[in-house]
Amino acid sequence: MSKWQEYLKQHRSRFFDEMLEFYRIPSISSLPEHADDVQRAAQWVADRMKQAGIEKVQILPTGGHPVVYGEWLHAPGKPTVLIYGHFDTQPVDPLHLWKRPPFEPAVEGDRIYARGASDDKGNMLIPILAAEAFLKGEGALPVNVKFFFEGQEEIGSPQLPEFVAAHRELLACDFVISADGGQYAEDQPSITMASKGLAGVQIDVKGANSDLHSGSFGGMVQNPIHALVRILDSMRSPDGRILVEGFYDKVRPLTEQDRADIAAVPFDEAALKASLGVDDFFGEPGYTPREANWARPTLEINGIWGGFQGEGVKTVLPNEAHAKITCRLVPDQDPDEIVELIQKHVATHAPKGVRVSVQPLPGKAKPNYTPKDHPAVAAAAEVLRELYGKEPYYVRTGGTVPVCELFRTYLGAYSVEFAFGLPDEQFHAPNEFFRISSWDRGQVAYCKLLERLGR
Amino acid sequence: MSKWQEYLKQHRSRFFDEMLEFYRIPSISSLPEHADDVQRAAQWVADRMKQAGIEKVQILPTGGHPVVYGEWLHAPGKPTVLIYGHFDTQPVDPLHLWKRPPFEPAVEGDRIYARGASDDKGNMLIPILAAEAFLKGEGALPVNVKFFFEGQEEIGSPQLPEFVAAHRELLACDFVISADGGQYAEDQPSITMASKGLAGVQIDVKGANSDLHSGSFGGMVQNPIHALVRILDSMRSPDGRILVEGFYDKVRPLTEQDRADIAAVPFDEAALKASLGVDDFFGEPGYTPREANWARPTLEINGIWGGFQGEGVKTVLPNEAHAKITCRLVPDQDPDEIVELIQKHVATHAPKGVRVSVQPLPGKAKPNYTPKDHPAVAAAAEVLRELYGKEPYYVRTGGTVPVCELFRTYLGAYSVEFAFGLPDEQFHAPNEFFRISSWDRGQVAYCKLLERLGR
Repeated sequence: MSKWQEYLKQHRSRFFDEMLEFYRIPSISSLPEHADDVQRAAQWVADRMKQAGIEKVQILPTGGHPVVYGEWLHAPGKPTVLIYGHFDTQPVDPLHLWKRPPFEPAVEGDRIYARGASDDKGNMLIPILAAEAFLKGEGALPVNVKFFFEGQEEIGSPQLPEFVAAHRELLACDFVISADGGQYAEDQPSITMASKGLAGVQIDVKGANSDLHSGSFGGMVQNPIHALVRILDSMRSPDGRILVEGFYDKVRPLTEQDRADIAAVPFDEAALKASLGVDDFFGEPGYTPREANWARPTLEINGIWGGFQGEGVKTVLPNEAHAKITCRLVPDQDPDEIVELIQKHVATHAPKGVRVSVQPLPGKAKPNYTPKDHPAVAAAAEVLRELYGKEPYYVRTGGTVPVCELFRTYLGAYSVEFAFGLPDEQFHAPNEFFRISSWDRGQVAYCKLLERLGR
Repeated sequence: MSKWQEYLKQHRSRFFDEMLEFYRIPSISSLPEHADDVQRAAQWVADRMKQAGIEKVQILPTGGHPVVYGEWLHAPGKPTVLIYGHFDTQPVDPLHLWKRPPFEPAVEGDRIYARGASDDKGNMLIPILAAEAFLKGEGALPVNVKFFFEGQEEIGSPQLPEFVAAHRELLACDFVISADGGQYAEDQPSITMASKGLAGVQIDVKGANSDLHSGSFGGMVQNPIHALVRILDSMRSPDGRILVEGFYDKVRPLTEQDRADIAAVPFDEAALKASLGVDDFFGEPGYTPREANWARPTLEINGIWGGFQGEGVKTVLPNEAHAKITCRLVPDQDPDEIVELIQKHVATHAPKGVRVSVQPLPGKAKPNYTPKDHPAVAAAAEVLRELYGKEPYYVRTGGTVPVCELFRTYLGAYSVEFAFGLPDEQFHAPNEFFRISSWDRGQVAYCKLLERLGR
């Protein structure tokens, strides 16, 4: 048994108590009345890092909730890894659906219940404990490590882009390991290869000065809802292909390997249809539903409104109509370019008799991916294979993980998610929990990963 | 000078005071707290009719606001005319925009200000006064007359269809003269030849069980807003022709005379565009804006809603989308058939992956028209020509006048509007007024019309 293994074993009970202590801090980033708690959590993390032997630990201001930074850089010739996580949590409402107070952690069998248990306090604590096991047990880490923990992930990290841009040197690294995320199942490891970018617009169509009586003006004045409907319908073919001119131009085609990796992940079509309550899937022709969701760009109308929405009938010819659209992007699409393409498309397809404007929505993000042959992916795969006795699935997400794009943009670093949450752990919902077995396995996994990266 | 003319002159001052008395009753039919006032107005009208010498005057229950009926049927061999009007008014809010209390009539020059002054108390009183002038001045009316005044016009006459259906014999007549309406301008008479029918539907599109995360399910599940947009866009060509299969099948084509009559009415395109704030008119190809509005059927989306309508961005793939549509119909379209055609069209054009339902909306009405060669139209034209010294315009309305359709359906009678409101008189708005000169001219006009009809 290696010294880090012995160290983890000897200090397990203390580590566990520390985790409970961490869980007790109600660091809800979205609620101003909890701002002090987020700060307290930052202090707790900084203290815990120092205790682990991590150096130059500091709480850095961002203009919003703070960042905690620390490093250990005494492995010359070895790669520098930035480990990422977050110590803020989601809110707890509706509180009455919780079986126990969300910030009083409670153990039941293999589960420990608390808000933030899985997302992300339990997961982000793991690499600190692994670092301590090396630094106290072995006297050194196998690689150079920088720790970067934030307190505003659950509110969309509003100050992070500016912060990362301003601290490129401090954060410079070869790649990022993200301790925010999870595995496919208790007995099935996975590595997340890609997340999507985001671009959104609001389309506003205006007609006459005011709402008109449909009897007095129907048939002679353009109806902004009809105009909007025409514009929106022109953006997608009936079979689901996006028709915005140039939309697919920069999309990197899926390779045979990509498609094989996606197909290797089980997908129970019938069960998913039943759980969603839909008779059919619907998406871009030529792609499976999962390929379309994971690896092809999408354009979805998120909302539409105009005119009369009440009970009964109102014979109004409204003078405004609006829609919100977001696109999920894949490499190498660029959110600013996509907004421009939509603006051009709308300008081309807008009917006469109305004025149409297209405004970008906030929250844009570039798509993110990590090449399968990246050394960190290979290392993570090897560790997971060893611990689970199975080849990991190479999964993707149709969602957006803006922080990975920040690291790619400002640090030039790919990110690999290496974390141990599981899909049923109720993150963002009442009765969130983390598995104690995952927490144990995670510490071993991180130590093995650091070891493997240092070879 | 004829005896009715002398009578009008002699009693003008009393008639005027009576009009003020009538205006003082706040008979707002839409407000339950004014139900007694509507009843009071009915009683006032009934008393006034009796005083005029009209027979069998009675207040008839409808289940809602009452109807007042009366008759004089002692002109054997002469036609029987049903004279229609309403004694209820619109509400008065926003009250602060009124320069004087709405139910305290005030004279300023030729104008008399009061809620209901023009619509319809001032206009509906005129035929009662004309009848009195004949009955008291001449001893008889030149034709058989039935009077039918209602107290629920401003709330859409909900109990009237059942009432008219149940009183076919009482109301039986050769044709209807409606004292609800107006003239083109102070110096230009007009006769309204047609109003449109109405058919409305609500379209509801449902997708998954609940709103979905656009990252988790975008690209693989049909979006109800996209589906709705497709359905709606399939209903109208880009240039404004309705594409619902069969929509135009029963439309009676406009004759050369119809088009000439419409073209004879002045239409200042530039001024109307400027006042509406639109750059272009928009409507069915091959028709002028006025032809399209007055005499061609329309389909307008009155409202649309679904998904996220707030500030900023929400990456939701919504599970519902809705729209309301109303069609304005022309002879010989039928509202029930049009609803069925829309239902068929939607069933044919609904994309897969969603459930779509089309429900009829309340307020359906058949289109109404009166042939230009109808004797009552000829009589009205002759009287107007004599009084104004000008040929009347033969106008139409793009709006719906359901009561005319009731008379056509249940009594087999065409309606001719013969009233003296003018377009600037603020009906349904603050500071409604009626012109005293119109009131005077209206009494003479009604007497002449009755005379002419009795010839």
